[in-house]
Amino acid sequence: MSYELYYWTGLQGRGEFVRLCLEDAGAPYIDVAREKGDDAMMSWLNGDHEGALPFAPPFLKSGRLVIAQVANILQYLGPRHDLVPASESKRLYAHQLELTITDLVAEVHDTHHPVATGLYYEDQKAEAKRRAKDFRENRIPKFLGYFETVVERGGGNYPLREHSYVDLSLFQILAGLDYAFPKAMKKLSPEIPLLRGLAKRVAARPNVAAYLASERRVPFNETGIFRHYPELDG
Amino acid sequence: MSYELYYWTGLQGRGEFVRLCLEDAGAPYIDVAREKGDDAMMSWLNGDHEGALPFAPPFLKSGRLVIAQVANILQYLGPRHDLVPASESKRLYAHQLELTITDLVAEVHDTHHPVATGLYYEDQKAEAKRRAKDFRENRIPKFLGYFETVVERGGGNYPLREHSYVDLSLFQILAGLDYAFPKAMKKLSPEIPLLRGLAKRVAARPNVAAYLASERRVPFNETGIFRHYPELDG
Repeated sequence: MSYELYYWTGLQGRGEFVRLCLEDAGAPYIDVAREKGDDAMMSWLNGDHEGALPFAPPFLKSGRLVIAQVANILQYLGPRHDLVPASESKRLYAHQLELTITDLVAEVHDTHHPVATGLYYEDQKAEAKRRAKDFRENRIPKFLGYFETVVERGGGNYPLREHSYVDLSLFQILAGLDYAFPKAMKKLSPEIPLLRGLAKRVAARPNVAAYLASERRVPFNETGIFRHYPELDG
Repeated sequence: MSYELYYWTGLQGRGEFVRLCLEDAGAPYIDVAREKGDDAMMSWLNGDHEGALPFAPPFLKSGRLVIAQVANILQYLGPRHDLVPASESKRLYAHQLELTITDLVAEVHDTHHPVATGLYYEDQKAEAKRRAKDFRENRIPKFLGYFETVVERGGGNYPLREHSYVDLSLFQILAGLDYAFPKAMKKLSPEIPLLRGLAKRVAARPNVAAYLASERRVPFNETGIFRHYPELDG
C-alpha cells in the first residue's frame, strides 16, 4: 500500500521534508497533487472528508489515517522505516529537534514575508531587508550553532548517534539556506564543520542521491520557503 | 515524584501551555526558575548536562527525561494523565492541532516583534503596526475559524469529542488574544460560539479554576507572548 502525500505542486516547500523521508526510506508514495492537480488536495482542506482536518499542506494519508504538520508526519514515519532510534528519550529528542527545525523554517519564510503571507514580496521589501539582516546576523548563527553542538554531543556524526529523519531535515535546511543566503552561509561555513559533514553523508545515501538526481526533486525557486533574493543576502 | 518545569519567571509565555496541563491534571510539579531563579535553567541551556539539549524554554524534566518544545511536552503528558484519547488517529490529530496552535503562537509573538526578537518593540513599531493589521484582519479569523470548525466536527463541545490537552491550549489562546486584541476579538466573537463555549468549560474545571484564582497564574503583561499595545488593536 502506498502512502499519499499532499502538497502544492511546483515547489519544494514544507512538503520536501516529508518527501526526503519517504525517498530515503524507499517507501512507495503517490505525490497526489503532482499527479492529479492541486484540486485533489483542496477537498481535504475544505473539510469534505470525515476525520482529521488539516490546517494546511503537507499532509499524509496512510491507510485511513490523515496526518498533518511536518514534524507530526516524520514522527509517524520514523519508527515505521527505521529512521529513529527505539528508546523513548531519543524519540522525544528527535521530535524536539524536528520542532526546532520547524521554527527555523517559519523564520526563513518570514525573511521574505515579514508583514503578511497574503501580500507580494515587493509590497514588504523594506521590512524584509530589515528582518533578513537580523536573520543572517543573529538567527542563522544561533540555530546552526545549536545544531552543530547537537551533532557534537551525538558523537560528531549524527544528532542521535545513528541515522535518523532529523539528518534528512538538517540536510534540507543547509541546502535551502545555501540557496537563499549563499554569502551569509559561505561566511558561516567554517563554524559548522559537523553539519557540513552530516549534509554530505545524507546526500551520498543511495536513495537520497537517486532522488536528488531525479526530476522529482524540483529545483529551489522563488515560490518556495527558501528564496534567493540577492538584496536579502547582504 | 514531581515533574520539574523550566521556564522564565515573570511571564506566562509558552510555559503557560504546559502549566495549564499540569494544573488540570493535578500533577505535582516544581516551577524551577520561580523557586530557584532563572540561573537554575541556564545550566541546561548551556549544555552543562548530558542528554537532550533544549534550544529554548520551556522544557520539562520527568525523571531522567528532558523534554523541550511545548507540543512535545503535551504529547508526552497527555497519555499519562488521561488528557488525550487512546486511539492512534486521535493522538495524531491532537498533536497536529497543538502544532497548529504553536504556529499561531509564533505569529502572535511576531505581531510585536516582526523584525527581530533581539530589538525592542519601540524599534520595530512601524512594522508591528502593519503586521498586526494583517494578523487581526486575516490570520486571527483564519486560525480561529479553523478551530471553530474543528470543534464543530468533534460534536460541538470538544475537538476530540472528549476533554484533552488541546482544550487547555485553546482556552489559553482565547484568553491571550482577548488580552492583546480586545477590540478585534470582540468583533470576531459572534463567529466563534463553540470556541467560547469550550473556553468557558475549561475555565470552570475545578483544577483550572483553582489555578486561575491562585498567585501561580501570573497576569498577562508586556514581557510575554500576548501583549496589549492599543496601537496594534486597530
